[in-house]
Amino acid sequence: MRAVVYRGPRQVEVVEVPDPKLQEPTDAIVRITTTNICGSDLHMYEGRTAVEEGKVLGHENMGVVEEVGPAVTRIKVGDRVSVPFNIACGTCRNCLEGWTSFCTRTNPTEGMDGAAYGYANMGPYDGGQAEYLRVPFADVNLLELPPGTEHENDFTMLSDIFPTGWHGTELARMQPGDDVAVFGAGPVGLMAAHSALIRGASRVFVVDKEADRLRLAESIGALGVDLSAGDPVEQIMDATDGRGTDCGVEAVGYQAHDPSGEEHPELVLDNLVQVVRTTGGIGVVGVYVPQDPEAADEGAKEGRVGFDYGTFFTKGQHMGTGQAPVMRYNRHLRDLIVAGRATPSFIVSHELSLDQAVEGYERFDEREDGWTKVLLRPGQAA
Amino acid sequence: MRAVVYRGPRQVEVVEVPDPKLQEPTDAIVRITTTNICGSDLHMYEGRTAVEEGKVLGHENMGVVEEVGPAVTRIKVGDRVSVPFNIACGTCRNCLEGWTSFCTRTNPTEGMDGAAYGYANMGPYDGGQAEYLRVPFADVNLLELPPGTEHENDFTMLSDIFPTGWHGTELARMQPGDDVAVFGAGPVGLMAAHSALIRGASRVFVVDKEADRLRLAESIGALGVDLSAGDPVEQIMDATDGRGTDCGVEAVGYQAHDPSGEEHPELVLDNLVQVVRTTGGIGVVGVYVPQDPEAADEGAKEGRVGFDYGTFFTKGQHMGTGQAPVMRYNRHLRDLIVAGRATPSFIVSHELSLDQAVEGYERFDEREDGWTKVLLRPGQAA
Amino acid sequence: MRAVVYRGPRQVEVVEVPDPKLQEPTDAIVRITTTNICGSDLHMYEGRTAVEEGKVLGHENMGVVEEVGPAVTRIKVGDRVSVPFNIACGTCRNCLEGWTSFCTRTNPTEGMDGAAYGYANMGPYDGGQAEYLRVPFADVNLLELPPGTEHENDFTMLSDIFPTGWHGTELARMQPGDDVAVFGAGPVGLMAAHSALIRGASRVFVVDKEADRLRLAESIGALGVDLSAGDPVEQIMDATDGRGTDCGVEAVGYQAHDPSGEEHPELVLDNLVQVVRTTGGIGVVGVYVPQDPEAADEGAKEGRVGFDYGTFFTKGQHMGTGQAPVMRYNRHLRDLIVAGRATPSFIVSHELSLDQAVEGYERFDEREDGWTKVLLRPGQAA
Amino acid sequence: MRAVVYRGPRQVEVVEVPDPKLQEPTDAIVRITTTNICGSDLHMYEGRTAVEEGKVLGHENMGVVEEVGPAVTRIKVGDRVSVPFNIACGTCRNCLEGWTSFCTRTNPTEGMDGAAYGYANMGPYDGGQAEYLRVPFADVNLLELPPGTEHENDFTMLSDIFPTGWHGTELARMQPGDDVAVFGAGPVGLMAAHSALIRGASRVFVVDKEADRLRLAESIGALGVDLSAGDPVEQIMDATDGRGTDCGVEAVGYQAHDPSGEEHPELVLDNLVQVVRTTGGIGVVGVYVPQDPEAADEGAKEGRVGFDYGTFFTKGQHMGTGQAPVMRYNRHLRDLIVAGRATPSFIVSHELSLDQAVEGYERFDEREDGWTKVLLRPGQAA
Repeated sequence: MRAVVYRGPRQVEVVEVPDPKLQEPTDAIVRITTTNICGSDLHMYEGRTAVEEGKVLGHENMGVVEEVGPAVTRIKVGDRVSVPFNIACGTCRNCLEGWTSFCTRTNPTEGMDGAAYGYANMGPYDGGQAEYLRVPFADVNLLELPPGTEHENDFTMLSDIFPTGWHGTELARMQPGDDVAVFGAGPVGLMAAHSALIRGASRVFVVDKEADRLRLAESIGALGVDLSAGDPVEQIMDATDGRGTDCGVEAVGYQAHDPSGEEHPELVLDNLVQVVRTTGGIGVVGVYVPQDPEAADEGAKEGRVGFDYGTFFTKGQHMGTGQAPVMRYNRHLRDLIVAGRATPSFIVSHELSLDQAVEGYERFDEREDGWTKVLLRPGQAA
Repeated sequence: MRAVVYRGPRQVEVVEVPDPKLQEPTDAIVRITTTNICGSDLHMYEGRTAVEEGKVLGHENMGVVEEVGPAVTRIKVGDRVSVPFNIACGTCRNCLEGWTSFCTRTNPTEGMDGAAYGYANMGPYDGGQAEYLRVPFADVNLLELPPGTEHENDFTMLSDIFPTGWHGTELARMQPGDDVAVFGAGPVGLMAAHSALIRGASRVFVVDKEADRLRLAESIGALGVDLSAGDPVEQIMDATDGRGTDCGVEAVGYQAHDPSGEEHPELVLDNLVQVVRTTGGIGVVGVYVPQDPEAADEGAKEGRVGFDYGTFFTKGQHMGTGQAPVMRYNRHLRDLIVAGRATPSFIVSHELSLDQAVEGYERFDEREDGWTKVLLRPGQAA
Repeated sequence: MRAVVYRGPRQVEVVEVPDPKLQEPTDAIVRITTTNICGSDLHMYEGRTAVEEGKVLGHENMGVVEEVGPAVTRIKVGDRVSVPFNIACGTCRNCLEGWTSFCTRTNPTEGMDGAAYGYANMGPYDGGQAEYLRVPFADVNLLELPPGTEHENDFTMLSDIFPTGWHGTELARMQPGDDVAVFGAGPVGLMAAHSALIRGASRVFVVDKEADRLRLAESIGALGVDLSAGDPVEQIMDATDGRGTDCGVEAVGYQAHDPSGEEHPELVLDNLVQVVRTTGGIGVVGVYVPQDPEAADEGAKEGRVGFDYGTFFTKGQHMGTGQAPVMRYNRHLRDLIVAGRATPSFIVSHELSLDQAVEGYERFDEREDGWTKVLLRPGQAA
Repeated sequence: MRAVVYRGPRQVEVVEVPDPKLQEPTDAIVRITTTNICGSDLHMYEGRTAVEEGKVLGHENMGVVEEVGPAVTRIKVGDRVSVPFNIACGTCRNCLEGWTSFCTRTNPTEGMDGAAYGYANMGPYDGGQAEYLRVPFADVNLLELPPGTEHENDFTMLSDIFPTGWHGTELARMQPGDDVAVFGAGPVGLMAAHSALIRGASRVFVVDKEADRLRLAESIGALGVDLSAGDPVEQIMDATDGRGTDCGVEAVGYQAHDPSGEEHPELVLDNLVQVVRTTGGIGVVGVYVPQDPEAADEGAKEGRVGFDYGTFFTKGQHMGTGQAPVMRYNRHLRDLIVAGRATPSFIVSHELSLDQAVEGYERFDEREDGWTKVLLRPGQAA
């Protein structure tokens, strides 16, 4: 089959690789109909991770079940499914408590809980930017979708970023009626804003400096805050009569940089601590890493982030972090899509064939204007 | 009346001051029967805060109601009461949501939510290390106790440290059956351990280096971890077969220091991030401050704490912080004392007259062996 | 001043009564701008309660503060306010835990927790269908609104039925993405449906037999289920592929009747037990009473309701009940109105002067077509 | 192998039956070391259910894994395990949300969610009062225990009644510090009392009329309330100064009877509604059934229970019901046993060989004095 393979910093190729096969009785093979390029794929693309040469990339996958192992009884051949990016065993302590993003059994990497497809440090699993994908523990992991092709561009957000954005609001313990600050209007930040509005936020402020992304935020009813036009904390404080927001979501991550382009991993956390009111919550779904050899200062190389902890404590705030347990949310989010109450496809900017993936990576990585979210269609002619 | 007054770094005096008077119709005057010296009083005593010369200290107070204003209808003269250290209006948004520690109305200090008696930056209120105390919004704040003198040394922990230790387990979102790590076996850490055991922890590890404090922890069924005998993280990892604990409580604060005595505000947070398992919670009730001019490095002076955030995120942990909203817990904790199921008095080491307060401050500040918790009895002859 | 006074079964009058005066230092006097007739006012109007002759009716009140007692410090003369129907002291155990609808201090009636304005058994408080209203514990109870007259018809729903409908979804423990069944499309049922949609329901089924009410439900995005067209349980089961809904809200009460008009207090509960899936929740905000001398059978006279408890247990359902603690929700709901995300005024059918109240009661009680919700304007010429 | 087989009303036999075999790749075979007779086995024994002649009884099972299917990867041959009474698939919507007691896939009975071993209406699964037991979805269902034989009589309570008692406190939403009323001092009621005390209840009142059971309750620190000595509601009201308890647990079920021996299924619910304070919770783990042909009145035959619903509503109480999802609790409860903080074996009165099962059923069914809880040891000579 054809697949997107990692070759080295800023090098991916679409090449022929062997078809995946059932390895365990609990496996399924899914024929991919849509697979997305994720912002976190760019971390690998840019050579900033330990991902192995030859890995098939892609953890945002959906498709149709092609084959199932003899121990698969819930999912059937022909089912249209979404594949959560986390690979969960379904029976370890974390999985049983609903933390499938921290499965203790599927990732053999020493000291790491949680596995994923086509991802650095997340286990030996190939990704789904390909024609077919092997899915372990298929009855556990696969989410059944209505048959057909309807809502394809909405459903494709169920594998990662819609649940991840939703998780940001959950980690922040958002309540209906809250004012919410979302930092970052990339795909995850936009999904967090969409989630907050669906679940009853009063006002959602979305902070970014790209005009096209701010326009997307405003298209769903959020309020864009252009940080290139002034301090975003001040802008939000003014809009809330000095009260700040009830909670906030971090959707930027450790590569946050100031207007001059210098990286400051503490920058967004500092802003959130300032803008969220006393007792409020901060949900962090932007990625932070324990080792970052490319970082500017010594602390940051070891994952240290010296944000304003004294104010965080004095304001009695709380913070939740980490990768989203997709299965905790994806059934409800699917139902919201079917009912017409969620439309996460609003962020899709490009739909390419698999063979156009190289161009997709290049231009998405350059943050070209208007390249918000790129979908790949393995079944579509180039 | 006689009262303990702050005079300057390491100087307190017991002197005659004017009796407090009712100022608002919602006030009460309480005759103090027991008032404790708190570890955080030592921050002021050591001159590390902006507390004003002449302030009466003392925020851990209990006694008998002497007089009430015309708008006080629930509390009666003669009631035996515990006085929460937080001064709450009871009607602002934070109070109505149960966050009386972040009352938006009682502290006139710019940008600060939350007030307290006899404390730096927490409003213009005198403390209760004195014969009498004025209590604002008495119907809101005062907790009624069974009449008489029974359980006096247990009930005196209801004003601050028992609820504060309990809050640590709550911020960590401890569940029955959990293994819990408590860092710091001072009064608050010991109260957190007591709380964790009362609410059904499996095992509670208490980390400290003072033998007398570890013995107290063990006396209530916790497991002492002597950090002078080796890395506490390793010790707990060994005891949990490498799994770590389900959650943890920080009861040390920004003055954490390494074995050589050097301050490292990130030290305890780093240990907690390592020792708590993926998805676990960390409750921070040790005090961190936004400004600390005495701190060793530039970041710490501004309240920045560069702990291992990358691992915190990768493990999907969460963290809650801040001063305890005493009223959320003190009714239930009182009932547990009356039922004989909580006995926080186990930490009391010294019961002094008010006139012995100067000696009490000196020796408690020197962390003399066996000086765990000092009570003052304003009604007792010296 | 002029006020609506209860005279006996189906007799109310608008007459001159003495102006209310400040009685306690914590009181305020509110000049009423809008006051609604509630469905539960009709229980009294119809003579089915023990309400005293001469009582001023009206518990859904809003207006402008005219005068405050000396202990009122948060609320100011001139503030525009909503008056929650519950009268709370703010300092008893239930109030401190957020259950202001079960205040243990404001209702002197033996064995009753919870007080209200102008209501049978809820204490000696006159209602607000009048020019002025005395509000006890004004700092506790009054909710400040933006000044002016904007959103008047939305804000007037904050005193009772919008929070009550919201409470129904809360008691049912509704989650975003849920399918919800609401029985009863009276004002409270419609508010429950509005609430469910605001907080992220997938689909909301609203069951009634009145075409005008079903149309209102559909106007906000709910799905009308016409019980005069067939068994509502079957209709919802069909629409959910036999799965039923995730939760349900009871907004009818003990006067539920079958199509023939006979009262069957167990009817709606039976339907909910059938239609809600295993493990789902049922929120009951329709009123049930401990004594109902008019009831058809002996059990019902004593408040017994013999619903299908065996199935309720076998399905592992849960149920929450009771009057809404308005203050738990009204701040957030006000913010949603201001932000344009909630518009509870959609149910208003009639806006009358106070002097038209007699006609309003008569026609509302006859459930005349189109008489969904009646507002009275004491300041408006007849 | 030898097994306890149901023959008809009050007839069980210990006979030779075929050994169970692996049927699915996800199955395991467990050699039973201990299996208990449950109070609900007596419903079948007494002929009050539709259980089939020939069924092997027993749903409270533990033992050692003898054999596993090829898709079982977590559990190994030789593991000592507890077998939850619910049979869960682990991948349906209810299982994924932690409701394994309402698995939608394992029970083929029309309209029933949830399966169990050796039980009427709960699917075609033989029980474990036998030498061996087939366990479906072994990786999902089996709970690993420390190897050896230590704590056998504590661990054997993990399959059903300890989690069931705990679930009662959870359904009642008990908080630490609460006063709790438990109705019924049978094994489940005693486990509920033990659970409430472990998780921090202030006082636990246990209501029964059997002196031996009340003594057991008192042996763990609960307060016995002897209903043969007077109205239990009055006794508890007196002990709580008229306030009632904060919550309550129903551990009796539909066969509740008054002192004269007449069945009144509403009796215990009525008592709980009276004794629990306003806003409090009631957890119902005593069994109620949708059909009961033997019942005294027409309503009860159809599962109707006409309890005092009007007071339930007026007090704003809430109620949770249904079979316990054992897996939600058994890991934590196992850890509490290992840590020495839970000792559910205190209720064990008899340890018999499998061949003594007939006598065990007879005498347990007669509620002979001192026959509280009967364990069977299939591996032990008669």
